[in-house]
Amino acid sequence: MKLVECVPNFSEGRDLKKVEQIADCFRGKKGVKLLDWSADADHNRSVITAAGEPEALAAAVVEAVGRARELIDLRRHSGQHPRIGAADVIPFIPLRGVTEAETVALSERVGQEIGDRYGIPVYLYEQSARHPGRRNLADVRRGGFEGLARKMQDPAWKPDFGPDRPHPSFGAVAVGCRKLLCAFNVNLNTDDLGVARAVARKVRERDGGLPFCKALGLELKERGLVQVSMNLTDFTQTSVWAAFEAVKAEAAKLGVTVAGSELIGLFPAAALLDCAAHYLQIENYAPDRVLEARLFE
Amino acid sequence: MKLVECVPNFSEGRDLKKVEQIADCFRGKKGVKLLDWSADADHNRSVITAAGEPEALAAAVVEAVGRARELIDLRRHSGQHPRIGAADVIPFIPLRGVTEAETVALSERVGQEIGDRYGIPVYLYEQSARHPGRRNLADVRRGGFEGLARKMQDPAWKPDFGPDRPHPSFGAVAVGCRKLLCAFNVNLNTDDLGVARAVARKVRERDGGLPFCKALGLELKERGLVQVSMNLTDFTQTSVWAAFEAVKAEAAKLGVTVAGSELIGLFPAAALLDCAAHYLQIENYAPDRVLEARLFE
Repeated sequence: MKLVECVPNFSEGRDLKKVEQIADCFRGKKGVKLLDWSADADHNRSVITAAGEPEALAAAVVEAVGRARELIDLRRHSGQHPRIGAADVIPFIPLRGVTEAETVALSERVGQEIGDRYGIPVYLYEQSARHPGRRNLADVRRGGFEGLARKMQDPAWKPDFGPDRPHPSFGAVAVGCRKLLCAFNVNLNTDDLGVARAVARKVRERDGGLPFCKALGLELKERGLVQVSMNLTDFTQTSVWAAFEAVKAEAAKLGVTVAGSELIGLFPAAALLDCAAHYLQIENYAPDRVLEARLFE
Repeated sequence: MKLVECVPNFSEGRDLKKVEQIADCFRGKKGVKLLDWSADADHNRSVITAAGEPEALAAAVVEAVGRARELIDLRRHSGQHPRIGAADVIPFIPLRGVTEAETVALSERVGQEIGDRYGIPVYLYEQSARHPGRRNLADVRRGGFEGLARKMQDPAWKPDFGPDRPHPSFGAVAVGCRKLLCAFNVNLNTDDLGVARAVARKVRERDGGLPFCKALGLELKERGLVQVSMNLTDFTQTSVWAAFEAVKAEAAKLGVTVAGSELIGLFPAAALLDCAAHYLQIENYAPDRVLEARLFE
Protein backbone atom coordinates (compact mmCIF):
# COMPACT_ATOMS: atom_id res chain seq x y z
CA MET A 1 0.00 0.00 0.00
CA LYS A 2 1.24 3.48 -0.84
CA LEU A 3 1.24 5.76 2.16
CA VAL A 4 2.04 9.47 2.29
CA GLU A 5 1.95 11.80 5.26
CA CYS A 6 0.91 15.46 5.13
CA VAL A 7 1.50 18.00 7.89
CA PRO A 8 -0.22 21.22 6.78
CA ASN A 9 0.16 24.33 8.94
CA PHE A 10 -2.75 26.78 9.22
CA SER A 11 -2.65 30.36 10.49
CA GLU A 12 -5.35 29.92 13.13
CA GLY A 13 -4.54 28.76 16.64
CA ARG A 14 -7.09 30.61 18.79
CA ASP A 15 -10.52 29.81 17.38
CA LEU A 16 -10.57 26.05 17.89
CA LYS A 17 -13.93 25.71 16.14
CA LYS A 18 -12.30 26.89 12.93
CA VAL A 19 -9.38 24.51 13.45
CA GLU A 20 -11.84 21.67 13.97
CA GLN A 21 -13.67 22.59 10.75
CA ILE A 22 -10.38 22.37 8.87
CA ALA A 23 -9.45 19.10 10.60
CA ASP A 24 -12.87 17.74 9.57
CA CYS A 25 -11.67 17.67 5.96
CA PHE A 26 -9.44 14.74 6.97
CA ARG A 27 -12.14 12.83 8.86
CA GLY A 28 -14.36 10.07 7.50
CA LYS A 29 -12.59 9.97 4.14
CA LYS A 30 -11.78 6.60 2.68
CA GLY A 31 -8.01 6.10 2.46
CA VAL A 32 -7.24 9.07 4.74
CA LYS A 33 -6.53 9.08 8.47
CA LEU A 34 -6.34 12.17 10.68
CA LEU A 35 -3.47 11.27 13.03
CA ASP A 36 -3.18 14.38 15.15
CA TRP A 37 -3.87 18.07 15.35
CA SER A 38 -2.65 20.78 17.68
CA ALA A 39 -3.16 24.52 18.00
CA ASP A 40 -0.93 27.13 19.62
CA ALA A 41 -2.51 30.39 20.75
CA ASP A 42 0.77 32.35 21.04
CA HIS A 43 1.78 31.40 17.54
CA ASN A 44 -1.88 31.63 16.44
CA ARG A 45 -1.22 28.59 14.35
CA SER A 46 -2.32 24.97 14.07
CA VAL A 47 -0.71 21.85 12.69
CA ILE A 48 -2.61 18.89 11.32
CA THR A 49 -1.01 15.50 10.78
CA ALA A 50 -2.73 13.14 8.37
CA ALA A 51 -1.69 10.14 6.35
CA GLY A 52 -3.22 8.13 3.60
CA GLU A 53 -3.20 6.89 0.07
CA PRO A 54 -1.68 9.59 -2.14
CA GLU A 55 -4.71 10.63 -4.19
CA ALA A 56 -7.20 10.46 -1.34
CA LEU A 57 -4.88 12.46 0.90
CA ALA A 58 -4.30 15.05 -1.83
CA ALA A 59 -8.05 15.54 -2.28
CA ALA A 60 -8.51 16.07 1.48
CA VAL A 61 -5.65 18.59 1.55
CA VAL A 62 -7.13 20.60 -1.33
CA GLU A 63 -10.48 20.62 0.47
CA ALA A 64 -8.81 21.82 3.69
CA VAL A 65 -7.10 24.66 1.84
CA GLY A 66 -10.50 25.72 0.49
CA ARG A 67 -11.92 25.61 4.01
CA ALA A 68 -9.00 27.74 5.29
CA ARG A 69 -9.70 30.23 2.51
CA GLU A 70 -13.28 30.60 3.77
CA LEU A 71 -12.41 30.75 7.49
CA ILE A 72 -9.12 32.61 7.83
CA ASP A 73 -8.40 36.22 6.91
CA LEU A 74 -4.73 37.03 7.26
CA ARG A 75 -5.46 40.75 7.12
CA ARG A 76 -6.82 40.34 10.67
CA HIS A 77 -4.25 37.81 11.87
CA SER A 78 -1.49 38.32 14.39
CA GLY A 79 0.96 35.84 15.85
CA GLN A 80 4.66 35.33 16.48
CA HIS A 81 5.29 32.72 13.84
CA PRO A 82 6.41 33.79 10.36
CA ARG A 83 3.69 32.99 7.77
CA ILE A 84 2.62 33.92 4.27
CA GLY A 85 -0.73 32.17 4.02
CA ALA A 86 -3.96 31.07 5.72
CA ALA A 87 -2.67 27.60 4.93
CA ASP A 88 0.98 28.48 5.24
CA VAL A 89 2.98 25.41 4.34
CA ILE A 90 1.91 21.97 3.12
CA PRO A 91 4.65 19.36 3.35
CA PHE A 92 4.12 15.88 1.92
CA ILE A 93 6.32 13.08 3.26
CA PRO A 94 6.67 9.64 1.66
CA LEU A 95 6.04 7.00 4.34
CA ARG A 96 5.73 3.62 2.70
CA GLY A 97 5.75 2.11 -0.79
CA VAL A 98 6.16 5.49 -2.43
CA THR A 99 9.26 7.28 -3.73
CA GLU A 100 10.35 10.85 -3.20
CA ALA A 101 9.84 11.47 -6.92
CA GLU A 102 6.23 10.29 -6.72
CA THR A 103 5.70 12.51 -3.70
CA VAL A 104 7.18 15.51 -5.50
CA ALA A 105 4.75 14.82 -8.36
CA LEU A 106 1.88 14.62 -5.87
CA SER A 107 2.85 17.99 -4.36
CA GLU A 108 2.90 19.47 -7.87
CA ARG A 109 -0.62 18.23 -8.63
CA VAL A 110 -1.87 19.65 -5.34
CA GLY A 111 -0.12 22.97 -6.00
CA GLN A 112 -1.62 23.18 -9.50
CA GLU A 113 -5.10 22.53 -8.18
CA ILE A 114 -4.83 25.08 -5.35
CA GLY A 115 -3.65 27.68 -7.84
CA ASP A 116 -6.31 26.90 -10.46
CA ARG A 117 -9.31 26.30 -8.25
CA TYR A 118 -8.84 28.91 -5.55
CA GLY A 119 -6.72 31.61 -7.22
CA ILE A 120 -4.02 31.27 -4.59
CA PRO A 121 -0.31 31.67 -5.51
CA VAL A 122 1.68 28.50 -4.77
CA TYR A 123 5.43 28.13 -4.24
CA LEU A 124 6.96 24.67 -4.59
CA TYR A 125 9.63 24.33 -1.88
CA GLU A 126 12.19 21.90 -0.47
CA GLN A 127 12.49 18.74 -2.63
CA SER A 128 9.75 20.01 -4.96
CA ALA A 129 11.45 23.39 -5.56
CA ARG A 130 11.97 24.30 -9.23
CA HIS A 131 14.28 27.20 -8.31
CA PRO A 132 17.25 26.85 -5.94
CA GLY A 133 16.13 29.96 -4.02
CA ARG A 134 12.87 28.20 -3.09
CA ARG A 135 14.30 25.07 -1.49
CA ASN A 136 14.53 26.70 1.92
CA LEU A 137 11.11 27.44 3.39
CA ALA A 138 12.50 30.36 5.40
CA ASP A 139 13.40 32.14 2.13
CA VAL A 140 9.94 31.57 0.66
CA ARG A 141 8.34 32.89 3.83
CA ARG A 142 10.67 35.85 4.37
CA GLY A 143 8.74 39.13 4.63
CA GLY A 144 5.60 37.31 5.70
CA PHE A 145 2.06 37.98 4.53
CA GLU A 146 2.54 41.72 5.06
CA GLY A 147 5.49 41.88 2.64
CA LEU A 148 4.08 39.47 0.10
CA ALA A 149 2.50 41.91 -2.40
CA ARG A 150 5.77 43.76 -2.70
CA LYS A 151 7.92 40.62 -2.81
CA MET A 152 5.80 39.22 -5.65
CA GLN A 153 6.48 42.26 -7.83
CA ASP A 154 9.99 40.82 -8.22
CA PRO A 155 9.91 38.39 -11.19
CA ALA A 156 12.16 36.08 -9.13
CA TRP A 157 9.12 35.46 -6.92
CA LYS A 158 6.62 34.66 -9.66
CA PRO A 159 4.76 31.68 -8.14
CA ASP A 160 4.90 28.16 -9.58
CA PHE A 161 1.09 28.06 -9.82
CA GLY A 162 -1.74 30.54 -9.43
CA PRO A 163 -1.88 34.30 -9.88
CA ASP A 164 1.11 36.66 -9.75
CA ARG A 165 -0.23 38.54 -6.73
CA PRO A 166 -1.34 37.46 -3.24
CA HIS A 167 -4.87 36.28 -2.63
CA PRO A 168 -6.30 39.22 -0.64
CA SER A 169 -7.30 37.32 2.50
CA PHE A 170 -5.37 34.06 2.11
CA GLY A 171 -1.95 35.22 0.92
CA ALA A 172 0.08 32.41 -0.63
CA VAL A 173 1.16 28.88 0.27
CA ALA A 174 4.30 26.76 0.09
CA VAL A 175 3.80 23.14 -1.02
CA GLY A 176 6.48 20.51 -1.28
CA CYS A 177 7.92 17.11 -0.56
CA ARG A 178 10.29 16.75 2.36
CA LYS A 179 11.78 13.97 4.45
CA LEU A 180 10.40 12.88 7.81
CA LEU A 181 11.54 15.45 10.32
CA CYS A 182 12.31 14.95 13.98
CA ALA A 183 11.42 17.97 16.10
CA PHE A 184 13.29 17.41 19.33
CA ASN A 185 14.01 19.81 22.19
CA VAL A 186 16.58 19.46 24.95
CA ASN A 187 15.97 21.40 28.16
CA LEU A 188 18.94 22.68 30.14
CA ASN A 189 19.23 23.28 33.88
CA THR A 190 19.83 27.02 33.70
CA ASP A 191 17.80 30.14 33.11
CA ASP A 192 20.64 31.69 31.10
CA LEU A 193 19.39 32.05 27.53
CA GLY A 194 22.97 32.71 26.44
CA VAL A 195 23.84 29.10 27.26
CA ALA A 196 21.03 27.71 25.07
CA ARG A 197 21.99 30.03 22.23
CA ALA A 198 25.68 29.15 22.50
CA VAL A 199 24.89 25.42 22.50
CA ALA A 200 22.49 25.82 19.55
CA ARG A 201 25.23 27.59 17.56
CA LYS A 202 27.66 24.76 18.30
CA VAL A 203 25.35 21.94 17.22
CA ARG A 204 23.58 23.38 14.16
CA GLU A 205 24.69 22.82 10.59
CA ARG A 206 24.52 26.50 9.65
CA ASP A 207 27.38 27.29 12.04
CA GLY A 208 29.50 24.23 11.27
CA GLY A 209 27.81 21.75 13.61
CA LEU A 210 25.91 18.57 12.85
CA PRO A 211 24.60 18.05 9.31
CA PHE A 212 20.81 18.25 8.88
CA CYS A 213 20.49 19.85 12.31
CA LYS A 214 18.69 23.17 12.78
CA ALA A 215 18.79 24.58 16.30
CA LEU A 216 17.63 27.61 18.27
CA GLY A 217 18.06 28.65 21.88
CA LEU A 218 14.75 29.48 23.61
CA GLU A 219 13.57 30.39 27.10
CA LEU A 220 11.08 28.23 29.04
CA LYS A 221 10.05 31.00 31.37
CA GLU A 222 7.50 29.05 33.39
CA ARG A 223 10.01 26.38 34.29
CA GLY A 224 12.96 28.76 34.71
CA LEU A 225 14.91 26.74 32.16
CA VAL A 226 16.25 27.24 28.68
CA GLN A 227 15.87 24.95 25.71
CA VAL A 228 17.76 23.97 22.60
CA SER A 229 14.97 23.47 20.09
CA MET A 230 16.05 21.32 17.15
CA ASN A 231 14.76 20.13 13.82
CA LEU A 232 16.62 17.10 12.51
CA THR A 233 15.81 17.08 8.82
CA ASP A 234 17.41 13.73 8.02
CA PHE A 235 17.73 11.49 11.06
CA THR A 236 19.49 8.83 8.98
CA GLN A 237 22.39 11.31 8.69
CA THR A 238 22.30 12.95 12.11
CA SER A 239 20.50 10.73 14.57
CA VAL A 240 18.50 11.90 17.56
CA TRP A 241 21.04 10.39 19.96
CA ALA A 242 23.92 12.20 18.24
CA ALA A 243 22.09 15.51 18.55
CA PHE A 244 21.20 14.81 22.18
CA GLU A 245 24.77 13.87 23.07
CA ALA A 246 26.16 16.92 21.26
CA VAL A 247 23.86 19.23 23.21
CA LYS A 248 24.76 17.45 26.45
CA ALA A 249 28.49 17.73 25.77
CA GLU A 250 28.38 21.39 24.71
CA ALA A 251 26.24 22.29 27.73
CA ALA A 252 28.65 20.41 30.02
CA LYS A 253 31.50 22.58 28.71
CA LEU A 254 29.53 25.54 30.06
CA GLY A 255 28.88 23.74 33.35
CA VAL A 256 25.22 23.05 32.60
CA THR A 257 23.40 19.70 32.78
CA VAL A 258 20.45 18.37 30.79
CA ALA A 259 17.05 18.54 32.51
CA GLY A 260 15.24 16.42 29.97
CA SER A 261 14.05 16.33 26.39
CA GLU A 262 10.78 16.60 24.49
CA LEU A 263 9.38 15.06 21.34
CA ILE A 264 7.35 17.50 19.26
CA GLY A 265 4.49 16.19 17.14
CA LEU A 266 4.47 12.62 15.92
CA PHE A 267 7.88 11.01 15.88
CA PRO A 268 8.99 8.32 13.44
CA ALA A 269 9.62 5.02 15.25
CA ALA A 270 12.83 4.40 13.30
CA ALA A 271 14.46 7.50 14.77
CA LEU A 272 13.84 6.28 18.32
CA LEU A 273 14.63 2.62 17.65
CA ASP A 274 17.98 3.75 16.31
CA CYS A 275 18.65 5.45 19.67
CA ALA A 276 17.81 2.29 21.60
CA ALA A 277 20.23 0.35 19.38
CA HIS A 278 22.96 2.88 20.09
CA TYR A 279 22.61 3.08 23.86
CA LEU A 280 22.09 -0.66 24.33
CA GLN A 281 25.11 -1.32 22.06
CA ILE A 282 23.02 -3.77 20.01
CA GLU A 283 25.38 -5.57 17.62
CA ASN A 284 22.74 -7.11 15.38
CA TYR A 285 20.21 -4.30 15.17
CA ALA A 286 18.23 -3.92 11.96
CA PRO A 287 14.80 -2.33 11.57
CA ASP A 288 13.33 -5.68 10.50
CA ARG A 289 14.21 -7.27 13.85
CA VAL A 290 11.26 -5.36 15.23
CA LEU A 291 8.08 -7.42 15.36
CA GLU A 292 5.79 -4.60 14.22
CA ALA A 293 7.96 -3.91 11.18
CA ARG A 294 7.30 -7.47 9.98
CA LEU A 295 3.63 -7.35 10.82
CA PHE A 296 2.87 -4.32 8.69
CA GLU A 297 5.46 -4.56 5.92
CA MET B 1 -8.67 -6.75 14.00
CA LYS B 2 -7.66 -9.47 16.45
CA LEU B 3 -4.03 -10.41 16.20
CA VAL B 4 -2.22 -13.21 18.02
CA GLU B 5 1.41 -14.25 17.72
CA CYS B 6 2.66 -17.82 17.95
CA VAL B 7 6.31 -18.84 18.37
CA PRO B 8 6.42 -22.64 18.18
CA ASN B 9 9.75 -24.39 18.80
CA PHE B 10 10.55 -27.56 16.86
CA SER B 11 13.25 -30.13 17.66
CA GLU B 12 14.96 -29.98 14.26
CA GLY B 13 17.71 -27.49 13.51
CA ARG B 14 20.00 -29.36 11.12
CA ASP B 15 17.83 -30.59 8.25
CA LEU B 16 16.66 -27.25 6.86
CA LYS B 17 14.41 -28.93 4.31
CA LYS B 18 12.34 -30.34 7.15
CA VAL B 19 12.25 -26.96 8.88
CA GLU B 20 11.06 -25.38 5.62
CA GLN B 21 8.31 -27.99 5.31
CA ILE B 22 7.10 -27.08 8.77
CA ALA B 23 7.36 -23.35 8.06
CA ASP B 24 5.30 -23.95 4.89
CA CYS B 25 2.26 -24.59 7.10
CA PHE B 26 2.27 -20.84 7.87
CA ARG B 27 2.69 -19.70 4.26
CA GLY B 28 -0.08 -18.74 1.84
CA LYS B 29 -2.81 -19.04 4.48
CA LYS B 30 -5.42 -16.30 4.62
CA GLY B 31 -5.20 -14.42 7.94
CA VAL B 32 -1.78 -15.86 8.81
CA LYS B 33 1.65 -14.35 8.27
CA LEU B 34 4.97 -16.15 8.68
CA LEU B 35 7.15 -13.46 10.22
CA ASP B 36 10.41 -15.27 10.77
CA TRP B 37 12.06 -18.61 11.22
CA SER B 38 15.50 -19.62 12.40
CA ALA B 39 17.32 -22.89 13.01
CA ASP B 40 20.25 -23.64 15.28
CA ALA B 41 22.40 -26.68 14.52
CA ASP B 42 24.05 -26.90 17.97
CA HIS B 43 20.70 -26.85 19.70
CA ASN B 44 19.21 -28.90 16.84
CA ARG B 45 16.15 -26.75 17.18
CA SER B 46 14.17 -24.24 15.15
CA VAL B 47 11.87 -21.40 16.07
CA ILE B 48 9.04 -20.13 13.87
CA THR B 49 7.37 -16.77 14.44
CA ALA B 50 3.94 -16.28 12.95
CA ALA B 51 1.05 -13.97 13.61
CA GLY B 52 -2.52 -13.80 12.47
CA GLU B 53 -6.18 -13.92 13.25
CA PRO B 54 -6.73 -16.33 16.14
CA GLU B 55 -8.61 -19.14 14.40
CA ALA B 56 -6.58 -19.06 11.20
CA LEU B 57 -3.34 -19.07 13.18
CA ALA B 58 -4.55 -21.93 15.38
CA ALA B 59 -5.37 -24.04 12.31
CA ALA B 60 -1.89 -23.43 10.87
CA VAL B 61 -0.26 -24.37 14.18
CA VAL B 62 -2.19 -27.64 14.40
CA GLU B 63 -1.15 -28.43 10.82
CA ALA B 64 2.50 -27.68 11.66
CA VAL B 65 2.39 -30.01 14.65
CA GLY B 66 1.07 -32.76 12.36
CA ARG B 67 3.92 -32.05 9.93
CA ALA B 68 6.45 -32.26 12.80
CA ARG B 69 4.96 -35.58 13.83
CA GLU B 70 5.63 -36.94 10.32
CA LEU B 71 9.12 -35.49 9.98
CA ILE B 72 10.80 -35.58 13.39
CA ASP B 73 11.64 -38.67 15.44
CA LEU B 74 12.92 -37.72 18.86
CA ARG B 75 14.30 -41.22 19.41
CA ARG B 76 17.03 -40.24 16.95
CA HIS B 77 17.44 -36.63 18.09
CA SER B 78 20.36 -35.08 19.92
CA GLY B 79 20.99 -31.48 20.88
CA GLN B 80 21.95 -29.32 23.84
CA HIS B 81 18.58 -27.73 24.43
CA PRO B 82 16.12 -29.38 26.87
CA ARG B 83 13.04 -30.67 25.00
CA ILE B 84 10.14 -33.07 25.44
CA GLY B 85 8.59 -33.05 21.98
CA ALA B 86 9.10 -32.86 18.22
CA ALA B 87 7.12 -29.65 18.56
CA ASP B 88 8.37 -28.81 22.00
CA VAL B 89 6.59 -25.69 23.11
CA ILE B 90 3.83 -23.62 21.48
CA PRO B 91 3.38 -20.19 23.06
CA PHE B 92 0.52 -17.93 21.97
CA ILE B 93 0.90 -14.22 22.65
CA PRO B 94 -1.93 -11.66 22.43
CA LEU B 95 -0.76 -8.80 20.20
CA ARG B 96 -3.71 -6.58 19.41
CA GLY B 97 -7.45 -6.46 20.04
CA VAL B 98 -7.40 -9.71 21.99
CA THR B 99 -7.28 -10.40 25.74
CA GLU B 100 -5.09 -12.82 27.65
CA ALA B 101 -8.23 -14.79 28.56
CA GLU B 102 -9.15 -15.19 24.88
CA THR B 103 -5.62 -16.29 24.13
CA VAL B 104 -5.70 -18.84 26.96
CA ALA B 105 -8.93 -20.21 25.47
CA LEU B 106 -7.29 -20.39 22.04
CA SER B 107 -4.35 -22.35 23.48
CA GLU B 108 -6.82 -24.76 25.10
CA ARG B 109 -8.61 -25.40 21.81
CA VAL B 110 -5.28 -26.00 20.07
CA GLY B 111 -4.14 -28.34 22.87
CA GLN B 112 -7.40 -30.28 22.71
CA GLU B 113 -7.10 -30.75 18.96
CA ILE B 114 -3.44 -31.83 19.10
CA GLY B 115 -4.34 -34.40 21.75
CA ASP B 116 -7.41 -35.71 19.95
CA ARG B 117 -6.21 -35.67 16.37
CA TYR B 118 -2.63 -36.81 16.75
CA GLY B 119 -2.60 -38.79 20.00
CA ILE B 120 0.03 -36.50 21.51
CA PRO B 121 0.01 -35.62 25.24
CA VAL B 122 -0.38 -31.87 25.80
CA TYR B 123 0.55 -29.84 28.89
CA LEU B 124 -0.99 -26.40 29.31
CA TYR B 125 1.71 -24.11 30.71
CA GLU B 126 2.33 -20.53 31.82
CA GLN B 127 -0.87 -18.44 31.81
CA SER B 128 -2.86 -21.43 30.47
CA ALA B 129 -1.66 -23.79 33.24
CA ARG B 130 -4.45 -25.57 35.15
CA HIS B 131 -1.98 -26.78 37.82
CA PRO B 132 0.46 -24.47 39.62
CA GLY B 133 3.31 -26.92 38.96
CA ARG B 134 2.85 -26.47 35.20
CA ARG B 135 3.16 -22.71 35.00
CA ASN B 136 6.91 -22.85 34.64
CA LEU B 137 7.97 -24.38 31.33
CA ALA B 138 11.25 -25.62 32.83
CA ASP B 139 9.26 -27.85 35.23
CA VAL B 140 7.14 -29.28 32.42
CA ARG B 141 10.25 -29.98 30.39
CA ARG B 142 12.41 -31.35 33.23
CA GLY B 143 13.72 -34.85 32.45
CA GLY B 144 13.36 -34.23 28.71
CA PHE B 145 12.04 -36.66 26.10
CA GLU B 146 14.20 -39.43 27.54
CA GLY B 147 12.61 -39.18 31.01
CA LEU B 148 9.07 -38.57 29.79
CA ALA B 149 7.65 -42.13 29.95
CA ARG B 150 8.75 -42.45 33.55
CA LYS B 151 7.63 -38.95 34.53
CA MET B 152 4.16 -39.60 33.10
CA GLN B 153 3.67 -42.63 35.35
CA ASP B 154 3.27 -40.08 38.16
CA PRO B 155 -0.43 -39.03 38.27
CA ALA B 156 0.78 -35.47 38.94
CA TRP B 157 1.98 -35.44 35.31
CA LYS B 158 -1.22 -36.71 33.69
CA PRO B 159 -1.47 -34.45 30.62
CA ASP B 160 -4.25 -31.89 30.10
CA PHE B 161 -5.15 -33.45 26.73
CA GLY B 162 -4.18 -36.57 24.84
CA PRO B 163 -3.00 -39.98 26.04
CA ASP B 164 -1.36 -40.72 29.38
CA ARG B 165 1.90 -41.85 27.81
CA PRO B 166 4.34 -40.22 25.39
CA HIS B 167 3.79 -40.46 21.67
CA PRO B 168 6.59 -42.87 20.67
CA SER B 169 8.40 -40.62 18.18
CA PHE B 170 6.96 -37.20 19.02
CA GLY B 171 6.98 -37.16 22.82
CA ALA B 172 4.72 -34.46 24.26
CA VAL B 173 4.16 -30.74 23.84
CA ALA B 174 3.62 -27.70 26.07
CA VAL B 175 0.98 -25.21 24.84
CA GLY B 176 0.07 -21.95 26.51
CA CYS B 177 -0.51 -18.23 26.55
CA ARG B 178 2.33 -15.98 27.62
CA LYS B 179 3.28 -12.33 27.44
CA LEU B 180 5.58 -10.90 24.80
CA LEU B 181 9.08 -11.90 25.79
CA CYS B 182 12.31 -10.06 25.11
CA ALA B 183 15.24 -12.39 24.53
CA PHE B 184 18.27 -10.19 24.99
CA ASN B 185 21.94 -11.13 25.43
CA VAL B 186 24.76 -8.96 26.72
CA ASN B 187 28.31 -9.93 25.71
CA LEU B 188 31.16 -9.28 28.11
CA ASN B 189 34.81 -8.54 27.33
CA THR B 190 36.26 -11.60 29.04
CA ASP B 191 36.61 -15.31 28.35
CA ASP B 192 35.95 -16.13 32.00
CA LEU B 193 32.65 -18.01 32.15
CA GLY B 194 32.63 -17.48 35.92
CA VAL B 195 32.08 -13.77 35.36
CA ALA B 196 29.03 -14.33 33.14
CA ARG B 197 27.59 -16.81 35.61
CA ALA B 198 28.18 -14.50 38.57
CA VAL B 199 26.54 -11.58 36.75
CA ALA B 200 23.59 -13.77 35.68
CA ARG B 201 23.03 -14.80 39.30
CA LYS B 202 23.05 -11.17 40.40
CA VAL B 203 20.50 -9.98 37.85
CA ARG B 204 18.00 -12.83 37.68
CA GLU B 205 14.80 -12.99 39.69
CA ARG B 206 15.39 -16.53 40.93
CA ASP B 207 18.40 -15.37 42.96
CA GLY B 208 16.89 -12.11 44.20
CA GLY B 209 17.67 -9.92 41.18
CA LEU B 210 15.34 -8.13 38.77
CA PRO B 211 11.71 -9.27 38.60
CA PHE B 212 10.68 -11.07 35.40
CA CYS B 213 14.34 -11.56 34.46
CA LYS B 214 15.74 -15.00 33.69
CA ALA B 215 19.48 -15.13 33.04
CA LEU B 216 22.23 -17.63 32.27
CA GLY B 217 25.96 -17.26 31.78
CA LEU B 218 27.22 -18.79 28.50
CA GLU B 219 30.49 -19.01 26.57
CA LEU B 220 30.87 -17.55 23.07
CA LYS B 221 33.89 -19.65 22.21
CA GLU B 222 34.42 -18.37 18.69
CA ARG B 223 34.67 -14.78 19.88
CA GLY B 224 36.56 -15.54 23.08
CA LEU B 225 33.82 -13.79 25.06
CA VAL B 226 31.17 -14.74 27.54
CA GLN B 227 27.51 -13.80 27.48
CA VAL B 228 24.69 -13.12 29.89
CA SER B 229 21.70 -14.55 28.05
CA MET B 230 18.42 -13.13 29.34
CA ASN B 231 14.70 -13.61 28.91
CA LEU B 232 12.68 -10.66 30.11
CA THR B 233 9.21 -12.08 30.58
CA ASP B 234 7.46 -8.77 31.29
CA PHE B 235 9.34 -5.79 29.91
CA THR B 236 6.75 -3.41 31.36
CA GLN B 237 8.03 -4.49 34.80
CA THR B 238 11.74 -4.92 34.10
CA SER B 239 12.71 -2.98 31.02
CA VAL B 240 15.47 -3.86 28.61
CA TRP B 241 17.50 -0.82 29.65
CA ALA B 242 17.24 -1.77 33.34
CA ALA B 243 18.49 -5.28 32.57
CA PHE B 244 21.28 -3.92 30.38
CA GLU B 245 22.41 -1.43 33.01
CA ALA B 246 22.27 -4.06 35.76
CA VAL B 247 24.50 -6.40 33.77
CA LYS B 248 26.87 -3.53 32.97
CA ALA B 249 27.10 -2.49 36.63
CA GLU B 250 27.58 -6.03 37.95
CA ALA B 251 30.24 -6.75 35.33
CA ALA B 252 32.00 -3.48 36.18
CA LYS B 253 32.26 -4.61 39.79
CA LEU B 254 34.27 -7.56 38.48
CA GLY B 255 36.38 -5.26 36.30
CA VAL B 256 34.72 -6.36 33.04
CA THR B 257 33.20 -4.13 30.35
CA VAL B 258 30.31 -4.74 27.96
CA ALA B 259 31.28 -5.72 24.40
CA GLY B 260 27.79 -5.34 22.98
CA SER B 261 24.33 -6.83 23.06
CA GLU B 262 22.10 -8.93 20.83
CA LEU B 263 18.38 -9.11 20.13
CA ILE B 264 17.11 -12.67 19.72
CA GLY B 265 14.15 -13.30 17.47
CA LEU B 266 11.65 -10.56 16.78
CA PHE B 267 11.59 -7.81 19.38
CA PRO B 268 8.52 -5.79 20.36
CA ALA B 269 8.96 -2.14 19.35
CA ALA B 270 7.55 -0.92 22.67
CA ALA B 271 10.44 -2.51 24.59
CA LEU B 272 13.01 -0.62 22.50
CA LEU B 273 11.09 2.67 22.33
CA ASP B 274 10.99 2.61 26.11
CA CYS B 275 14.82 2.42 26.13
CA ALA B 276 15.11 5.41 23.79
CA ALA B 277 12.82 7.38 26.09
CA HIS B 278 15.00 6.50 29.08
CA TYR B 279 18.38 7.30 27.59
CA LEU B 280 17.21 10.48 25.85
CA GLN B 281 15.48 11.59 29.09
CA ILE B 282 12.28 12.25 27.15
CA GLU B 283 9.87 14.03 29.48
CA ASN B 284 6.74 13.65 27.38
CA TYR B 285 7.19 10.14 26.03
CA ALA B 286 4.08 8.06 25.40
CA PRO B 287 3.68 5.21 22.93
CA ASP B 288 1.11 7.20 20.95
CA ARG B 289 3.66 9.93 20.18
CA VAL B 290 5.10 7.50 17.67
CA LEU B 291 3.78 8.03 14.16
CA GLU B 292 3.47 4.34 13.35
CA ALA B 293 1.41 3.70 16.49
CA ARG B 294 -1.20 6.14 15.17
CA LEU B 295 -1.08 4.77 11.67
CA PHE B 296 -1.92 1.22 12.63
CA GLU B 297 -4.02 1.66 15.75
